[in-house]
Amino acid sequence: SLVSSLRYGVFLVARLEDVELRPLGVKDVRVKMLAAPINPSDINMIQGTYAILPDLPAVGGNEGVAQVVEVGHQVKSLKIGDWVIQRDPGLGTWRTEAVLAEDHVISLLNDIPLLSAATVGVNPCTALRMLSDFEDLQPGDSVIQNAANSGVGQAVIQIAAAKGINTINVVRDRPEFPHLSDRLKGIGATYVIKEEALRRPDIEDLFKTCPKPKLALNGVGGKSATELLRHLQTGGSMVTYGGMSKQPVTIPVSALIFKDVKVRGFWITQWKKDHSHDARAFRSMVDELCSLIRQGKLTAPACTEVGLQDYRKALDTAMQPFTSAKQILIM
Amino acid sequence: SLVSSLRYGVFLVARLEDVELRPLGVKDVRVKMLAAPINPSDINMIQGTYAILPDLPAVGGNEGVAQVVEVGHQVKSLKIGDWVIQRDPGLGTWRTEAVLAEDHVISLLNDIPLLSAATVGVNPCTALRMLSDFEDLQPGDSVIQNAANSGVGQAVIQIAAAKGINTINVVRDRPEFPHLSDRLKGIGATYVIKEEALRRPDIEDLFKTCPKPKLALNGVGGKSATELLRHLQTGGSMVTYGGMSKQPVTIPVSALIFKDVKVRGFWITQWKKDHSHDARAFRSMVDELCSLIRQGKLTAPACTEVGLQDYRKALDTAMQPFTSAKQILIM
Repeated sequence: SLVSSLRYGVFLVARLEDVELRPLGVKDVRVKMLAAPINPSDINMIQGTYAILPDLPAVGGNEGVAQVVEVGHQVKSLKIGDWVIQRDPGLGTWRTEAVLAEDHVISLLNDIPLLSAATVGVNPCTALRMLSDFEDLQPGDSVIQNAANSGVGQAVIQIAAAKGINTINVVRDRPEFPHLSDRLKGIGATYVIKEEALRRPDIEDLFKTCPKPKLALNGVGGKSATELLRHLQTGGSMVTYGGMSKQPVTIPVSALIFKDVKVRGFWITQWKKDHSHDARAFRSMVDELCSLIRQGKLTAPACTEVGLQDYRKALDTAMQPFTSAKQILIM
Repeated sequence: SLVSSLRYGVFLVARLEDVELRPLGVKDVRVKMLAAPINPSDINMIQGTYAILPDLPAVGGNEGVAQVVEVGHQVKSLKIGDWVIQRDPGLGTWRTEAVLAEDHVISLLNDIPLLSAATVGVNPCTALRMLSDFEDLQPGDSVIQNAANSGVGQAVIQIAAAKGINTINVVRDRPEFPHLSDRLKGIGATYVIKEEALRRPDIEDLFKTCPKPKLALNGVGGKSATELLRHLQTGGSMVTYGGMSKQPVTIPVSALIFKDVKVRGFWITQWKKDHSHDARAFRSMVDELCSLIRQGKLTAPACTEVGLQDYRKALDTAMQPFTSAKQILIM
């Protein structure tokens, strides 16, 4: 059957097309997409600047929630009506329907908000892994991060707060700083500070009450990353997951030799690939996140819902700098 | 008794003074220093630019070999005539005699060359630890390093060669490059290349026969470090132990996120401090190095022997840039 799909190619950047669904195999499910976000990495894929690029033309989107509408004869873990999210990126979520291998999706209970389900698979997963896999963080420890208002940043704040970990959240100065600070504190941020404040000597006062961070999370690069490093505990780690400033990460040699800081990177796509034969790893991560969502401790970022037909407007908005609300395509 | 010691203080940078030895305790040994090198970090300590600085005035030098001339009643591991090296830095080796706690030294068999014994405790230890503690290197694997002609660099070449590990050695261009290249290949270097050659596209030809390095060792910083990173295997580590260029280490965000490179630092002084309650760790490292020395697989770097009285000349020479021979004070 023909389904409406938002494809992109070399000549025409993106257009809505009808594409033929592949026949349902015995271990496949047919799903109806419910909601799929437009993430910055999706834009980079379309622009050809991302680290992995699909063969073109390709269906855009790497995240979203779908509902099972048909199951192959040998499918065991899923039934009609189940909500599912995909385990692996690159399957294309900006479409009305898809046929997917049972192994490539996992089910979610549909007792969480649709927008939370649609956005749980990338940013909250990134945040949880970075908080779990690099330093052994205990309640009372602290984490410093820049880009604190990003999707990952907000998930870090909420997951850390749920674990009793302090967050020192660095944001660029802006006219509505007091409003932003209140909003981030409302979701669990311990401190919200402007980048300039981080450079001032009186920032040391903060560390009279809050332990120096064991972990720094960097989504910006450039000077912002170097500033995070300056406040890290001896032996601590800085993990880079993004480079919004388009500047490299610059590290004083003395920080490496004498402070033993560890400079690492994290990419959820690689993590998923590395764990593609370990279904339980992804399942247990998603279960932990859904449990936080259910308890009200992890909320979806501010979203604007846009019908799939209005994809041009959604893509245009998503490409603006300083976009504050995530664009979510609703099918 | 009064012994001749090369002390340094705030007003007079360095002078030879007679200092009172502390009385021999029951768990102490009195040693006669035989030979002690002038390392770059010793100069930095005198200049006050090192990460750890002793109370002044202090006796200079952090490495060297001594001979036991008197033992306290409860000393068990040492006897008169034994060669010893110190386990911990900061005891001051530029002196004719010293009283040291038994716990602070370990004995060496005196069947290795004096200059090898005098220089085994810092650079070869640094090289061995960096080759052992960051990546699991197997015979046939490769390591890339800059500052390949430094004391650490030469030890890396020799220890790696003894383990069957390929080394790609990067040096600054210089008129005597062919001579230097031959000399480094003579001690086991697999490849010796100029920094400019590392930036040229045809360097990729090298990796048709030699696997991409799992480990990069950086004693320079700046662009040189960034170039090493470019050739690292996905998931590999770069370990910084020095910053001769006085430039920070700059890392593209994509190398961290998509190539999963791990950027670390190493400082042998910290390693010794961290292992100060584990005598076997230092002992087994020194035994491994002495065994390589005995087999002719690890030689001392080019040294100039200078009498302690001629310390001014030795310090002046050690402070020159591009010093090729290590200055060793002979007592």
